[in-house]
Amino acid sequence: MKITEMAHLYVKTALREGGVAVDATAGNGHDTLFLARLAGPGGRVYAFDIQEEALQRTSALLQQENLLDRVKLIKAGHEQMSAYVNEAVSAVMFNLGYLPGGDHRIVTGKGTTLAALKEALTLLQNGGVITVVAYPGHPGGKEEQEALLDYCKTLNSREYRVAYTFYLNQAHHPPVLITVHKL
Amino acid sequence: MKITEMAHLYVKTALREGGVAVDATAGNGHDTLFLARLAGPGGRVYAFDIQEEALQRTSALLQQENLLDRVKLIKAGHEQMSAYVNEAVSAVMFNLGYLPGGDHRIVTGKGTTLAALKEALTLLQNGGVITVVAYPGHPGGKEEQEALLDYCKTLNSREYRVAYTFYLNQAHHPPVLITVHKL
Repeated sequence: MKITEMAHLYVKTALREGGVAVDATAGNGHDTLFLARLAGPGGRVYAFDIQEEALQRTSALLQQENLLDRVKLIKAGHEQMSAYVNEAVSAVMFNLGYLPGGDHRIVTGKGTTLAALKEALTLLQNGGVITVVAYPGHPGGKEEQEALLDYCKTLNSREYRVAYTFYLNQAHHPPVLITVHKL
Repeated sequence: MKITEMAHLYVKTALREGGVAVDATAGNGHDTLFLARLAGPGGRVYAFDIQEEALQRTSALLQQENLLDRVKLIKAGHEQMSAYVNEAVSAVMFNLGYLPGGDHRIVTGKGTTLAALKEALTLLQNGGVITVVAYPGHPGGKEEQEALLDYCKTLNSREYRVAYTFYLNQAHHPPVLITVHKL
């Protein structure tokens, strides 16, 4: 099973019909679509990206599936999440790195990603989950991952269960997964 | 989410109604029951344990749920798995360590556990999964875990996707999870 599929499995257990979710890195819109389907007609998904190109692709994908009405596309850094989301959320998904098929020089960075994770924690309701798929292969990717891991180790174990998943038998810097479950 | 719940999530995606599964460590029978429910009336679960006490508890639990007819209880070490299971399986679950509420001096050991994992790999069909929950806290537990990890790193990445999951923010030797997906 791929790391991204693992992230989906965890989100499925936390996000119910009528729920609210955040795609912190809209990118090509795949996670936004996944979240929009789970949230159902009564639910809402906030999708963030700093690149116009990403938001356009996400918009087109959701339009094609007739689910755009339950999605709010936001052109802002995910570290400003709580300025746009004023309700508790059941799931927040991060898929870090660069936009596939886009400019590979534009990547998420450890400072803003860490700030965004902290924002996400303030929005997460009990029983909710945050998933972070990180890519240590590109420049800055390893540092971003280490910063996230260092921070996650400090989270209170009575409030959060934080797990780290990585492949044991894959070469070439495969992606890793961090999951934060709020108890 | 607990490590044991994560293992259940992965098994759920691999084991369908009518499928065949193995509980390599029957213990109190909780995983056997979980597998028996997923396998359905047309499915089969092979449950191994070397302790009579464990098999009796498992038998009682399955009897109580009226599911004993789809379970084969086997009093043998799981390293002899393929002598008793002569068909391909979709899921094999290991929950290592000692029998909860039993004699804590009787624990799984790295030699037999590793042999059992290798047996399980020969039985696993494409799309199937092996889950191993290991407990590094008891004597020998850490060595058992390290032996499993060392072996899993050597598995061919074109045949298997092997992932390792552990908590980042829990003290006191929490359990860890190894998942082996056959591609």
